[in-house]
Amino acid sequence: MTVDIRRYLDEKREEVDRFLETIIPDAKTPPTTLHEGMRYSLFAGGKRVRPILAIAAAEAVGTPSKAVLAVASSLELIHTYSLIHDDLPAMDNDDYRRGKLTNHKVFGEAMAILAGDALLTLAFELCSRQDLMDDLAPTRQVQLIHELAVGSGNLGMVGGQVLDIQAENRDIDLATLQTIHKHKTGMLIRASVRMGAIAASATAAQLGQLTAYAEDVGLAFQIADDVLNVTGTREELGKDANTDAQRGKKTYPAFHGIEGARALADQCVDRAIGHLRAFDAKADPLRELARYIAARKN
Amino acid sequence: MTVDIRRYLDEKREEVDRFLETIIPDAKTPPTTLHEGMRYSLFAGGKRVRPILAIAAAEAVGTPSKAVLAVASSLELIHTYSLIHDDLPAMDNDDYRRGKLTNHKVFGEAMAILAGDALLTLAFELCSRQDLMDDLAPTRQVQLIHELAVGSGNLGMVGGQVLDIQAENRDIDLATLQTIHKHKTGMLIRASVRMGAIAASATAAQLGQLTAYAEDVGLAFQIADDVLNVTGTREELGKDANTDAQRGKKTYPAFHGIEGARALADQCVDRAIGHLRAFDAKADPLRELARYIAARKN
Repeated sequence: MTVDIRRYLDEKREEVDRFLETIIPDAKTPPTTLHEGMRYSLFAGGKRVRPILAIAAAEAVGTPSKAVLAVASSLELIHTYSLIHDDLPAMDNDDYRRGKLTNHKVFGEAMAILAGDALLTLAFELCSRQDLMDDLAPTRQVQLIHELAVGSGNLGMVGGQVLDIQAENRDIDLATLQTIHKHKTGMLIRASVRMGAIAASATAAQLGQLTAYAEDVGLAFQIADDVLNVTGTREELGKDANTDAQRGKKTYPAFHGIEGARALADQCVDRAIGHLRAFDAKADPLRELARYIAARKN
Repeated sequence: MTVDIRRYLDEKREEVDRFLETIIPDAKTPPTTLHEGMRYSLFAGGKRVRPILAIAAAEAVGTPSKAVLAVASSLELIHTYSLIHDDLPAMDNDDYRRGKLTNHKVFGEAMAILAGDALLTLAFELCSRQDLMDDLAPTRQVQLIHELAVGSGNLGMVGGQVLDIQAENRDIDLATLQTIHKHKTGMLIRASVRMGAIAASATAAQLGQLTAYAEDVGLAFQIADDVLNVTGTREELGKDANTDAQRGKKTYPAFHGIEGARALADQCVDRAIGHLRAFDAKADPLRELARYIAARKN
């Protein structure tokens, strides 16, 4: 192993956190309650998996993380908004997230809805800033914004969330489960890797290989998430465990058993790494990230 | 009067509606419920004021509406999402909008939140399409996206919505009311006019004059809205009347009386039209729009 993945994750997470701190208004900027609410969820201890995937994809193509921090961070703004809205009483009605009270439990439902809307919008505000992306050709910047919108919108993440809600307490088949996950989780992970690659001026061939990598990693991520929901403790997860079964959600362990699901995740990781065979050691973080994502404990 | 404003509004509204129809998935495209929900509110009979302001601004600079339809329509996607979220039980808790049940009354709260999120995201997806904007320089396209994000985000429309909620049942002064409205309504109207102008390659001087116009029109729009809330009937408004007073919201009529507020709106219109003195007859629709916005009955 050429990369200490724990150390890599820590370093990149800190880089992303420092950057996010510079682009989000402090809690004294009016409207203060809104900015407090946005910061509360954004700095609640997220692992920054999506920004780090974007950074690692850029590095695989030979571009340092510094050049893609804005692009990478926009993905975390989208991810954070989606968590705030998912946790709302009308949706999953969760009280805890990452070991802390959910946004609406602290700020109320109205403010949580608006903090989510504001984070979503800020992602596009960030990606459309010209001062932060002066090395990037404007056509590529437009392409990045489009990737982000498609990955997170009605045919991407939001669409997957709709399918997920509709599947609760229904007897869905494996193909339906795969469609749900492909959209709910997969499309934004795919966008993360692609945005890092596009920002790094990847060739069409590189972008194709990285996209294939991202699709397998996205699937591994979701299978691991489903397994953790069954096997993880409340302490490990920072939220209630075994909630899928309680909500009548069918998941990978329900179809394949715990061990079968784990084996499936491992196969995805192998396939993902296989797609990177044309890349040199600069893609090692991406390779280790795939392994980490399938084996993580939270 | 050189422009029949009623006819102009009808023609442009139809152009916008036809365009929107081409960019939003039909109700048979999965996830069907989501697309049904998005369409329900988007085609609920909106006046398309913001897209038409963008179109009229582009025409004032000499660019035909056809060239800016995508940009103009993105504003309606943002406006529609904001109405869906504003109507939610946790926010204004409205049952009717434009004479129809509100989105969450038909589709449920979860789906209404997601339809709003999807419309918001689709606005940026639309503005970042390269196929629809091939006449536009990519730097201008990025600038348009940035205008839209700033106008609708934490320091724009969403920020204003937060201030508005916080002001309910509180004894605010006139300066606070102005700040609320400047953000909640004004910033997106400002963005509408500016986006039309930028898409039409306005000069810096033209953009400055059109921005000044937009700021006065935004204020007139909000004052007229406040007056209508008091004087309009349920039939005229398509929603409950006199709701501001019931919610303990202080509005322009509360500070100036009905007649005083009307006079103030008229002054804004005069100022707005004054900012257009350097423009020729191609700006007549903008001039008439300002008058229409202050005098409208719904």
